[in-house]
Amino acid sequence: MHDIVQTANATTALVAGPNGDTKTINSFGSVMVIDDPLTEGPELGSRLVGRGQGMYVFDSMNDFSLLLSFTAVFVKEKHNGTLSFHGADRILLTKREIPVVGGTGDFRFAQGYAFIETASIKGFSAVLKFSVTVVL
Amino acid sequence: MHDIVQTANATTALVAGPNGDTKTINSFGSVMVIDDPLTEGPELGSRLVGRGQGMYVFDSMNDFSLLLSFTAVFVKEKHNGTLSFHGADRILLTKREIPVVGGTGDFRFAQGYAFIETASIKGFSAVLKFSVTVVL
Amino acid sequence: MHDIVQTANATTALVAGPNGDTKTINSFGSVMVIDDPLTEGPELGSRLVGRGQGMYVFDSMNDFSLLLSFTAVFVKEKHNGTLSFHGADRILLTKREIPVVGGTGDFRFAQGYAFIETASIKGFSAVLKFSVTVVL
Repeated sequence: MHDIVQTANATTALVAGPNGDTKTINSFGSVMVIDDPLTEGPELGSRLVGRGQGMYVFDSMNDFSLLLSFTAVFVKEKHNGTLSFHGADRILLTKREIPVVGGTGDFRFAQGYAFIETASIKGFSAVLKFSVTVVL
Repeated sequence: MHDIVQTANATTALVAGPNGDTKTINSFGSVMVIDDPLTEGPELGSRLVGRGQGMYVFDSMNDFSLLLSFTAVFVKEKHNGTLSFHGADRILLTKREIPVVGGTGDFRFAQGYAFIETASIKGFSAVLKFSVTVVL
Repeated sequence: MHDIVQTANATTALVAGPNGDTKTINSFGSVMVIDDPLTEGPELGSRLVGRGQGMYVFDSMNDFSLLLSFTAVFVKEKHNGTLSFHGADRILLTKREIPVVGGTGDFRFAQGYAFIETASIKGFSAVLKFSVTVVL
């Protein structure tokens, strides 16, 4: 997942923050809407498998952690459908875990979890590796 | 579900958007809070079965798609309880699917999916038909 | 869960509301981001078991009800992991129910429900008692 922030080709929009601040990316309370490309490999040019669409919220006062709440919408090749994620993304950990709370199409009744690893960071942008396990 | 937008009897409130814009309904990043009547038939005057309360977020840069994240709170007649929805609503498709991620009361441990069809559109308002399948 | 609002030691940030209003706590459409201490007993000084991180949205026009969407992130003592909640919190009821939609770590594949009771209220702040039942 390529989360591209504050650049010409950004895939994110900051939409809310504390005290009406809609400029600061990572305050406690910042809300970011995302439409992030999902690719097979870590390069943005690698095969597109879908888009990660939804939002994340900076919800820690003392470090950086997110409520990551989005849907992986797959392009119709191998997989037809979506997976819904909803949980804490503790972005300072090299490897962390988030729940899969549902799915549609090929992924109806999906329950499970994903490990998230930060593959690379550039400014506020990040490339995230998702390793997903689901039971249908 | 009657999603009534920008009229005197609106059941929605636009609360956030990109760059502090809280006027444009459907920008990438617009956040709408909803308290939509749920009725048995497509007419607003038809029997009220509950309310759809929560939010949706415009999370596609290239077309119109939502993160639809809300609870159906049923009136206590046939059903007592709630169903939680969380997933992509690809509003340009005539028929699309969203996951049911949980429930309460009569719907504890609910998992499943709903087909959504747009019954009618008027301005930014829409009447949506939900066909829900859940396993408890 | 200690939801501390509009005080010097607040654990919440109001980030959005209707018509760009980011001052009024409980309008229809108000969005609050939370990082609330989770303690064993009702006193703030009682043993910390984790934090409730995420958000709630005032999503009722006619009374006060929330979309409560957050993660319980446990400190690594007895429990290692998280539980994701997503559903209606009808705060005017003395006892209400919200679904558990997923989990991580010790709580992978968690599904269930929690009863919420308001233990005390002071201004806009509240202490909430959660009684959680999950199946893994």
